[in-house]
Amino acid sequence: MPRDPRYDLLFTPIKLGPVTAKNRFFQVPHCNGMGHAMPLAHAAMREVKAEGGWAVVSTEECEIHPSSDLTPYVEARLWDDRDIPALALMCDKVHAHGALAALELSHNGPTASNLYSREVLLAPSHQPSKYGYPSQARAMNLHDIRQYRRWHREAAIRGKRAGMDIIYVYAGHDLSLAMHFLQRRRNQRTDEYGGSLENRVRLLREVLEDTRDAIGDTCAVALRFATEELLGPGGVELNEARDIVAMLAELPDLWDVNVAAWYNDSMPSRFASEGAQEPFIDFVKKTTTRPVVGVGRFTSPDTMVSQLRRGVLDMIGAARPSIADPFLPRKIEEGRIDDIRECIGCNICVSGDMTISPIRCTQNPTMGEEWRKDWHPETIAPRSSASRVLVVGAGPAGLEATRALGQRGYDVSLAEARRELGGRVTRESRLPGLSEWARVRDWRVGQIGKMDNVGVYLDSPLTVQDVLDFGAGHVVLSTGCHWRRDGFGRSNGLGIADFESNQRVFTPDDLMDGRWPQGRVVVFDDDNFYLASVLAEALRRQGCDVTYVTADDTVASWSVHTLDYRHIRVRMAELGIEPIVSHNIERFQGTTLVLENVWSGKQSDVQCDAVVSITSRLPDDQLHAGLLLREPEWNGAGIRSVRCIGDALAPGLIVHAVYEGHRYARELEQDVPSGVPFKRHFHVGNEDGPLR
Amino acid sequence: MPRDPRYDLLFTPIKLGPVTAKNRFFQVPHCNGMGHAMPLAHAAMREVKAEGGWAVVSTEECEIHPSSDLTPYVEARLWDDRDIPALALMCDKVHAHGALAALELSHNGPTASNLYSREVLLAPSHQPSKYGYPSQARAMNLHDIRQYRRWHREAAIRGKRAGMDIIYVYAGHDLSLAMHFLQRRRNQRTDEYGGSLENRVRLLREVLEDTRDAIGDTCAVALRFATEELLGPGGVELNEARDIVAMLAELPDLWDVNVAAWYNDSMPSRFASEGAQEPFIDFVKKTTTRPVVGVGRFTSPDTMVSQLRRGVLDMIGAARPSIADPFLPRKIEEGRIDDIRECIGCNICVSGDMTISPIRCTQNPTMGEEWRKDWHPETIAPRSSASRVLVVGAGPAGLEATRALGQRGYDVSLAEARRELGGRVTRESRLPGLSEWARVRDWRVGQIGKMDNVGVYLDSPLTVQDVLDFGAGHVVLSTGCHWRRDGFGRSNGLGIADFESNQRVFTPDDLMDGRWPQGRVVVFDDDNFYLASVLAEALRRQGCDVTYVTADDTVASWSVHTLDYRHIRVRMAELGIEPIVSHNIERFQGTTLVLENVWSGKQSDVQCDAVVSITSRLPDDQLHAGLLLREPEWNGAGIRSVRCIGDALAPGLIVHAVYEGHRYARELEQDVPSGVPFKRHFHVGNEDGPLR
Repeated sequence: MPRDPRYDLLFTPIKLGPVTAKNRFFQVPHCNGMGHAMPLAHAAMREVKAEGGWAVVSTEECEIHPSSDLTPYVEARLWDDRDIPALALMCDKVHAHGALAALELSHNGPTASNLYSREVLLAPSHQPSKYGYPSQARAMNLHDIRQYRRWHREAAIRGKRAGMDIIYVYAGHDLSLAMHFLQRRRNQRTDEYGGSLENRVRLLREVLEDTRDAIGDTCAVALRFATEELLGPGGVELNEARDIVAMLAELPDLWDVNVAAWYNDSMPSRFASEGAQEPFIDFVKKTTTRPVVGVGRFTSPDTMVSQLRRGVLDMIGAARPSIADPFLPRKIEEGRIDDIRECIGCNICVSGDMTISPIRCTQNPTMGEEWRKDWHPETIAPRSSASRVLVVGAGPAGLEATRALGQRGYDVSLAEARRELGGRVTRESRLPGLSEWARVRDWRVGQIGKMDNVGVYLDSPLTVQDVLDFGAGHVVLSTGCHWRRDGFGRSNGLGIADFESNQRVFTPDDLMDGRWPQGRVVVFDDDNFYLASVLAEALRRQGCDVTYVTADDTVASWSVHTLDYRHIRVRMAELGIEPIVSHNIERFQGTTLVLENVWSGKQSDVQCDAVVSITSRLPDDQLHAGLLLREPEWNGAGIRSVRCIGDALAPGLIVHAVYEGHRYARELEQDVPSGVPFKRHFHVGNEDGPLR
Repeated sequence: MPRDPRYDLLFTPIKLGPVTAKNRFFQVPHCNGMGHAMPLAHAAMREVKAEGGWAVVSTEECEIHPSSDLTPYVEARLWDDRDIPALALMCDKVHAHGALAALELSHNGPTASNLYSREVLLAPSHQPSKYGYPSQARAMNLHDIRQYRRWHREAAIRGKRAGMDIIYVYAGHDLSLAMHFLQRRRNQRTDEYGGSLENRVRLLREVLEDTRDAIGDTCAVALRFATEELLGPGGVELNEARDIVAMLAELPDLWDVNVAAWYNDSMPSRFASEGAQEPFIDFVKKTTTRPVVGVGRFTSPDTMVSQLRRGVLDMIGAARPSIADPFLPRKIEEGRIDDIRECIGCNICVSGDMTISPIRCTQNPTMGEEWRKDWHPETIAPRSSASRVLVVGAGPAGLEATRALGQRGYDVSLAEARRELGGRVTRESRLPGLSEWARVRDWRVGQIGKMDNVGVYLDSPLTVQDVLDFGAGHVVLSTGCHWRRDGFGRSNGLGIADFESNQRVFTPDDLMDGRWPQGRVVVFDDDNFYLASVLAEALRRQGCDVTYVTADDTVASWSVHTLDYRHIRVRMAELGIEPIVSHNIERFQGTTLVLENVWSGKQSDVQCDAVVSITSRLPDDQLHAGLLLREPEWNGAGIRSVRCIGDALAPGLIVHAVYEGHRYARELEQDVPSGVPFKRHFHVGNEDGPLR
């Protein structure tokens, strides 16, 4: 299809200092959990973005010196010349597709750890390290500042030697010295680098000038700048940010503007919608003649064009949308708007970096698998035979298996017992704040709808006999799971006495089936991620008095990894949902819930009309079990394989279900390596040569 | 000196199945944060243990399959043959010193993460993953159990090929499937692997038999077994453990017994003393004829001999004592008991693994630096000149700098302003539970006492003029730091209004100086590690009503990394210290302390007579500053260098101070690489070859 002329503006080139971007799509720096530890995997992931049409593809933040060691987090690294090859590899792969490569240099000061390098942390003034490491950063003296500028300059030159086209100075996310000098809470200096705004901006200005001087002849100098920290006078505030932008307006070749910290920048869709940063950054283009890029989890080309036309941005920045769909620009260019796999804002991508593991994506199961499994987000091997495949269950695993099998050319039948597609995705997306999660279903249903070789059957519960009678060559069971009613979970490995039969005990399934408790409700969270807080919110909005109880020592602890945590805490406080942490349930009799403090053993009572028990789940795998019992009949029925996937195998997140569905489709009738089913990086010593 | 004959028993060989250990010193498996990611660093660290006289040197736990991927934690790995070279390297280095190499195989089931491999977790029954990862493990079927046994067998064979002499089956720490099948809370199976004790032991028995069958001809088969989880009937309990040991008594060649989980096994010295596990493991030797090894943070050779003579153990197991002093066996053998650098039980070693960074040790600053910095725990380069060195301040940094400079042969003068040595170590070791920390001082003072070239001067505060007049070639300032009184810290970057001048506000220094508050006391913890809980305990024991307040969302959050956390929580509950989390201090007027909920902003009052403010620290660096002002006079005074180290440069932990003191001494008048001052591992792809 030809491109819609409405979107032409997105495909006009733009000059960024000495280099030119071929269009307006800019993959801004983002972490990925691979970084310097997995350079081949990292380069392949960036290459796919370039292939997908992004004019600029950036690294994650890049450590410039051992005194800015981010261990345990794995980012980019340019400590010395030995780090150049890993980034040169990325540049070569990005350039091969006509894109520019950008490098985000950073010295993280008191927000580094130096757990690996064991160097002393540096900061504008003496202060504790940000992340709770039990060490303090020391106040830099003027010699330290000169050293820092030298390190930054040398790293910029190394970046240029690696082939980078754009070199960032980083003053965002409360993560770099150039920003820390701006902040009154981190900078109490009394010399020319502290006090007045001009003084606090001095270092940032110098580093910008240094960088231009070092590499500005052939590389663009970008400034990533946070305009608002939402912390009051201790932080960068919008009014001050306006002055800073005015002071530095023409110094960089490109402004990349956002809000800080990361949890405010990459807001989950539960808490912010597309384009939410506009009020914080729209002044920048009015203040500088330099191009401006910004983010807003943009997936709609109409919104993108509007940003450009209204003079908010010159380039559409994206991290998460480029992860969910590396081919987003190409799809707009080719008039394939329907094919865009839109980011759902669940921030599972962030959790990769946070848990020091390779990036993954709920919508794009190939993310992070480009190198090690040779998975491409747009292409897949054609089918190996004319086998028919029966997929039972149209949740995220079943839909993705169906879609990818359909893409391979298989003749696929998808049977769903309910009257709607999407399984848990559909059910959860009706809860407060989760509506965008329905995109997991919608994109797959849209793609399947274009396939002649796929049949979809709603309202079709299947028995074991039905499956045997159907006569498919391969059977995939993605029949989901249900929440346990017996209290079994992390905190109660032997369950909770009498929970199972107590009519006042509800599960998340009860609520999603429309059976909501009323009155005083305790939400018992033994799951420790998002769902309990979402259900608590839903109950509160329905007028219940809600108390949140967990045996864990914090609320929704795993949600720190998706940047939900702080927003959940604020939301719960706003709604008046009382959190009771470090308490397990002892028993529940009548309307008396007896809690036990997990540390003191002390018991206390809460009066409530109902408990919503969110502990753990059990697979709905009866069909699988029934088929296994009749394995001798498979051959006669033409069945060559039966596999159980997704929550029906092991309950997990939606990302796990989509991945399992995709993996099933990739591997069907293919030779899969026995043993370790992917390529790995190995770790050798530079001085001593390879071990082998 | 000759060996004391009392200790001869420790140096008698002992047969372990087909292999023989040359003495009774056994470095049991311990994590180290380097593992498969840094094989050269790992092998060098293990080699130093072998050189130091340990008869057996073990790996950390070793993943046997991608479905037991421990990411982000970095342990050993034997997923396939490509992992053999890294462990063969260790074996070669251990064998070079006549020691045996041991390998701890593990499949971690639901206590793995699979964040990297993305495989589905496995468990005896369906259950949530242990560490809060938002996924569940699936119940293994009989096919899975066969697979697991095959993986374990194959890993054992790979271990043998790498050169291992002892192969462990691991059923400890709640970390391996062989143990998970024993636990009722993890095993609700109804088949032959669940229910009765015999059924729950079945898998462990099978794996022991498999392992013997696979490698038992030339390798010893060890069983690491936890006898008590202290969790009641959901866990392994002592009574059941007695039956299990009886059932498997002669099956392994060696029993390695301890308690679970890790936080109960490696108890900090604050909560357990030497030999604390004896009541939980002393039955084992009475039940089996096989040799038994166990741990107890043993550093006293008399205690060790007692364990052997009383028939508790056959071999002295050690992890932490071997980290604090890799040469512990050699020192006993050579009659150098005074030279033993005793573990202080601070568990900073554990924090390496926990924070995914290389192991470090408060007592032994060379730990983890053997390869990358070529640091050896016992040897150091001789001095490069006849320069005299003046060390000002005898805290941990100054003492270690003095000791190591003295070892190098320098003429060192150590001046201490107070009347006692040890600085913060001495002061903190007087607080409840921290007495063993004084070993940091005692070992150094003992070593220095043997040196003719070191002079120690107490009660000797020095002025700038004193230092200039002294005429040393090099001056080291290790003058410590003090706690801030103004409330400045992580949660209050602009301080707390009027705190500085409030007589009811105390700092930790006030308390350690003997100025203790009375009555109702709030301990405000903005430090988030051990000190606030220790001071709260001290205040409570003195009869105060103590409330613990923190703006953090948990108590003493960083202490999870040293395994203190749970013990702190229980101790505080036992003492009746009320924790108030998620509350910052708004103001303190009269006896009214106004707190603000950090999430809701709601204010509340606490009536108290005093606040102990534990926020952050400032260096005592006036002497350094004064000397810098007079730099033009240095040359005339014969001073070639002035350096500030330890807390006087940047306040940190004792481990940081010792490391800085040691580093100073190592680097004085030596060529130190410019740029990155250590060797690194680089990460390459196996299929694609090196990047460079």
